[in-house]
Amino acid sequence: MSADSVAELIEGVLAGTPRAVARAMSIAEGRSTQATELMSEIHRHAGKAHVVGITGVPGSGKSTLVAAMTRILRQQGKTVGIVAIDPSSPFSGGAILGDRVRMTGFADDEGVFIRSMATRGALGGLARASLDIVDVFDAAGFDVVLVETVGVGQDEVDIVQAAHSVLVVSAPGLGDEIQAIKAGVLEIADIHVVSKCDRSDAQKTVNELTAMLGLGRQGGRQGTGEAGWAIPVIPTSAETGLGVEELVATINNHYAHLEQTGEMEQRQRQILEMRIIKTAEDMLREKLLRERDGRLQELLERAFNRDTDVRTAASDLLDAINGNSSDDK
Amino acid sequence: MSADSVAELIEGVLAGTPRAVARAMSIAEGRSTQATELMSEIHRHAGKAHVVGITGVPGSGKSTLVAAMTRILRQQGKTVGIVAIDPSSPFSGGAILGDRVRMTGFADDEGVFIRSMATRGALGGLARASLDIVDVFDAAGFDVVLVETVGVGQDEVDIVQAAHSVLVVSAPGLGDEIQAIKAGVLEIADIHVVSKCDRSDAQKTVNELTAMLGLGRQGGRQGTGEAGWAIPVIPTSAETGLGVEELVATINNHYAHLEQTGEMEQRQRQILEMRIIKTAEDMLREKLLRERDGRLQELLERAFNRDTDVRTAASDLLDAINGNSSDDK
Repeated sequence: MSADSVAELIEGVLAGTPRAVARAMSIAEGRSTQATELMSEIHRHAGKAHVVGITGVPGSGKSTLVAAMTRILRQQGKTVGIVAIDPSSPFSGGAILGDRVRMTGFADDEGVFIRSMATRGALGGLARASLDIVDVFDAAGFDVVLVETVGVGQDEVDIVQAAHSVLVVSAPGLGDEIQAIKAGVLEIADIHVVSKCDRSDAQKTVNELTAMLGLGRQGGRQGTGEAGWAIPVIPTSAETGLGVEELVATINNHYAHLEQTGEMEQRQRQILEMRIIKTAEDMLREKLLRERDGRLQELLERAFNRDTDVRTAASDLLDAINGNSSDDK
Repeated sequence: MSADSVAELIEGVLAGTPRAVARAMSIAEGRSTQATELMSEIHRHAGKAHVVGITGVPGSGKSTLVAAMTRILRQQGKTVGIVAIDPSSPFSGGAILGDRVRMTGFADDEGVFIRSMATRGALGGLARASLDIVDVFDAAGFDVVLVETVGVGQDEVDIVQAAHSVLVVSAPGLGDEIQAIKAGVLEIADIHVVSKCDRSDAQKTVNELTAMLGLGRQGGRQGTGEAGWAIPVIPTSAETGLGVEELVATINNHYAHLEQTGEMEQRQRQILEMRIIKTAEDMLREKLLRERDGRLQELLERAFNRDTDVRTAASDLLDAINGNSSDDK
């Protein structure tokens, strides 16, 4: 892409043109020189959107809730960008749930833009790529960006934590293993949401979360977030519409709270730090993959013959990439 | 640790002394100089165990199946090491399901050794750390190493793929989102296992998997693994014991198949390549974290003020770590 067309593309993104936004996102997912050039510019124009992370175990009803929240946000006149991180199809390599489920009802609405990403398409750079896509939405002027991931896997949790407001969705009546996985993400919530509260066993889930927050408060570790935010537990039902308006109001309150207390700046710094580290890791990964037929092949043979070991080989590989032969690990 | 005691520890590991094995694993999880020294030696003594990866979505009954398989392997006189990657507790940072569930019935058996790892304790180095632990089991002379992870998240899938034989466990009657996630790992199976086949709806799951493999065969992408291994679908029930013996026999057959066709060497090379890359990434991550109060802080402030962008900052950070100030990305 010539410099002219990068400039044109950026102009299109800043104007919020859907085609330019989609094209910029496709470029952002990759690792080309154009991607670097584009994202440098985009990043300088981002920083205005309210980024909301939504996570929860499989089956907790995140996607349905995202659709319900989007409807309310649209009624409030806000534009909504959605980044949905999905399990991958083994055949296409693409996302399975994808836009198919989520688009229902928003197909004709230019104020809603959905981007699905497959968990296994990004060659390990999922966090880097999805947060670049958040930047594109932000630069394109979307008021709210909803980032939805399954709350299992380090990358998925990192992505959600890179939001200003983090929602953790719990559902009643899931199995033991699911509950254990759920416990692993409860601590990152700014707002707890209980879905499927049209069910009779939902109150138990609400009570358990409330009790957990209460216990935490005594220990000084949970219950209130930084700078005095009382973490709420909001019962919802996408079926009946219960609680969804309250949830959106609470998200708006959380944003206001972050701004008023100065915590927003702190969060933005944390997010940027994480992104710089993830992006550096991604760049290294790219360099490593470029060595596949070179130095790596040689080290691999030596490790295979037990003439070297994994750690020594890894250290030698890093040295090779950095262009020095000394052992400076 | 002095050189003497590293030598002593290695001696203990090679002799299979439980205390030495446990201690070596704790060191291996870390990133100390001792860990490097220890693992270099351990790696040279590994390479004899049959490493079996077991994955499946939450609720598919992996842990129960691992226990049932272990009982059969023990009856065959084989020693079994188990690496269980668990969701983390938000409070302890440790694994939740842990040894508690799995140890039942093996507490007095020295031929079974279980190591639980928490998904969020490894600071992003989960794959590197868990595969080092497999090496410790291997060097300690365990005949079979079972590595169990939830099949969600790139790291978890990478870990299971670093096994000689990969089992993907499916269960009947899970929800839509779970099914979609399941689809994402089906392609990595050498052996499909359907659990809970005491249930009446299990045959449907068996049929679906069989049909999928048949379809794939026509397309030349699934149904048979490399070098002519016909991927089987094995119905099991940990409840009634159905199919577990057949499953263990099939795993043994797969091992023999890998050896006879020469595919074992190819797999070992793939696994080593992945491990060298993961370990190099982990070493870089450590270097990056050491820059937290240094160069990273300065780049972060500049990115926060939009004087630089994430990618440029990441590139500058990599340069700083490598000790050069030029732009050699």
